[in-house]
Amino acid sequence: MSIKFEVTHICKQSGARLGKLTTPHGVFETPFFMPVGTQATVKTLTPEEIKEVSEGLILGNTYHLWLQPGNDIVKDHGGIRGFMQWDGALLTDSGGFQVFSLTNMRKITEEGVFFKHHKNGSQLFMSPEDSIKVQEDLGADIIMSFDECPPPYETFDYMKKSVDRTLRWAKRGKDVLSTDQALFGIVQGGLNKDLRAYSAKELMKMDFPGYSIGGLSVGETKEEMYEITKFLNPILPFDKPRYLMGVGAPDDLINNVINGMDMFDCVLPTRIARHGTALTTEGKIVIKNHIYEKDFSTLDPNLKTHVSKYTRSYIRHLFKGNEILGMRLVTYQNLAYIKHLMQEIRQAIKEDRLLDYKEEMMNKTNYFKKR
Amino acid sequence: MSIKFEVTHICKQSGARLGKLTTPHGVFETPFFMPVGTQATVKTLTPEEIKEVSEGLILGNTYHLWLQPGNDIVKDHGGIRGFMQWDGALLTDSGGFQVFSLTNMRKITEEGVFFKHHKNGSQLFMSPEDSIKVQEDLGADIIMSFDECPPPYETFDYMKKSVDRTLRWAKRGKDVLSTDQALFGIVQGGLNKDLRAYSAKELMKMDFPGYSIGGLSVGETKEEMYEITKFLNPILPFDKPRYLMGVGAPDDLINNVINGMDMFDCVLPTRIARHGTALTTEGKIVIKNHIYEKDFSTLDPNLKTHVSKYTRSYIRHLFKGNEILGMRLVTYQNLAYIKHLMQEIRQAIKEDRLLDYKEEMMNKTNYFKKR
Repeated sequence: MSIKFEVTHICKQSGARLGKLTTPHGVFETPFFMPVGTQATVKTLTPEEIKEVSEGLILGNTYHLWLQPGNDIVKDHGGIRGFMQWDGALLTDSGGFQVFSLTNMRKITEEGVFFKHHKNGSQLFMSPEDSIKVQEDLGADIIMSFDECPPPYETFDYMKKSVDRTLRWAKRGKDVLSTDQALFGIVQGGLNKDLRAYSAKELMKMDFPGYSIGGLSVGETKEEMYEITKFLNPILPFDKPRYLMGVGAPDDLINNVINGMDMFDCVLPTRIARHGTALTTEGKIVIKNHIYEKDFSTLDPNLKTHVSKYTRSYIRHLFKGNEILGMRLVTYQNLAYIKHLMQEIRQAIKEDRLLDYKEEMMNKTNYFKKR
Repeated sequence: MSIKFEVTHICKQSGARLGKLTTPHGVFETPFFMPVGTQATVKTLTPEEIKEVSEGLILGNTYHLWLQPGNDIVKDHGGIRGFMQWDGALLTDSGGFQVFSLTNMRKITEEGVFFKHHKNGSQLFMSPEDSIKVQEDLGADIIMSFDECPPPYETFDYMKKSVDRTLRWAKRGKDVLSTDQALFGIVQGGLNKDLRAYSAKELMKMDFPGYSIGGLSVGETKEEMYEITKFLNPILPFDKPRYLMGVGAPDDLINNVINGMDMFDCVLPTRIARHGTALTTEGKIVIKNHIYEKDFSTLDPNLKTHVSKYTRSYIRHLFKGNEILGMRLVTYQNLAYIKHLMQEIRQAIKEDRLLDYKEEMMNKTNYFKKR
């Protein structure tokens, strides 16, 4: 097995886990957040910059790279790491989420999924074996089982059928894996606890080196999401990493760490950055707002980066003028902030005070406001 | 006077000038090229990166900054340099070119120009005095007289009237200047040599610290452009810098240096970069072309920068995916190349071999192909 994981401390106040994940490309303290590099680039940033604002792990999207430039070309570069010149650790998803969220005209069979290209409409097919083959070419340290990700409010009957098929797909993927990449199983089951428990336990029988939780952050409420992670916390194996897919809002990170999650990824910090919303130690800021027109203060007074030398007035001006530098600066800030937040969360776990930390964050930022 | 200039060598082979321009923010060997930072940002780059790929001088656009965020806000940051955190030297244009190229519904009067905002259509007015006032607020080392820039094929009668008015505007601007910024006069006159000579000589009577050549690179042929710069070379004062506005294609840079020009600016290297055209020591490359799909070589094998570590295949992929990093990398490359080209041009002047250098460039690149 190419990864190792151990829990190193449990927060006495919250029950949150501190851990250590060893990969072929670095050792990382959990819980951590991974920026998303969909097309073998974390949007707007160079690998040097990604290194500065991440823990040293990023996520790549199998679906996108399979279609463009094609996994063969990425493989010929030595995988995503060689292709984009990233020397840190890497995780790829299975493509399943994109197949189900970006495409239409899908037909799901036992064999795999028929669907149309999200841009040019051409007919495509992906099986669990295809997903593993592509992920082998992409060469990540940690890879994912091919799964169906149904909408959260599907019927029980549909969900049960889907979970069973996804379990069979997980087994098929595991059986064809020919590398020492760490393949995670993905727990599905929507908002139904019985199905979630069933999915988790069946996957655990296959003994994966780590377990992902899919099918959350896809339209359900925050309370529903937290309910599921809280429920799965005691069910999932203690000594294996748990990866909550697609979660990256500050309040969701804190609450799901309390619920025993170790790994996170999300496009949110980088996507909202490109539209001018900054995540700071003082809360969320919509930089285009008129109140920042003559604001000569720095974007985040408590987080010193190369962005600190610019005024809010200047960054607002860049967004008003649709300047790419604006997107660069706020993307950098947002990832730097999430990295800082995860460091603070880990520190709070070490000091057995994560609930206090959450309380502080609720008081001093706008991240926990009802949306 | 805040700038000093001297010619330090004349190329025995070509007659091209080598010079030294001293400004409050650096001493620069001429001829040089200035990247364009229209909205107080050289598109896609940070000031640190601009420093690497420029000689240390950039151009800002008065028209754009006057409208957004407004010269008052820029002034309150200590000018463009403080606003964008640029510690090098700076030149601003007068706004005249944008008033005449971006707007419509213009009405030119002796007092100034009435026109509509290029985006929101609101009614605006700029006089020569306004232009100087705005440029004082923007705080560049070198600033420009407010001029009319008529299309190159206007009638002689119109051109004569326009040149006379622009001369009166130059005088008015000079009279109100209250700083020690170096104000250049702008030679106009379209493609008519008599008018060009007249414009130059009348400006020279006003004794400006430098002379710009406007109204070129606006639709005329390359031969017509070279004809005018060649004609003006012996007319303009030997010991004052000559700034050819809006020129930045490699062939145009070489030919106009031979014609005695010292300073250049152009959006071309950065604009074509954002559409995926790279300027390299081996010629122009359209990176989206299919032939680069599996090209594992570096973008420019003879120019070592941080861009060198990526393959053409990867950069092509970034453009196929509309990724901002692609625009960043090619922008950096193109400016690095133009900087490199100007260094080679200056070296060739020192070695009295600029015509030989031009010949080499004609043989080894596609920059001199007829377009």
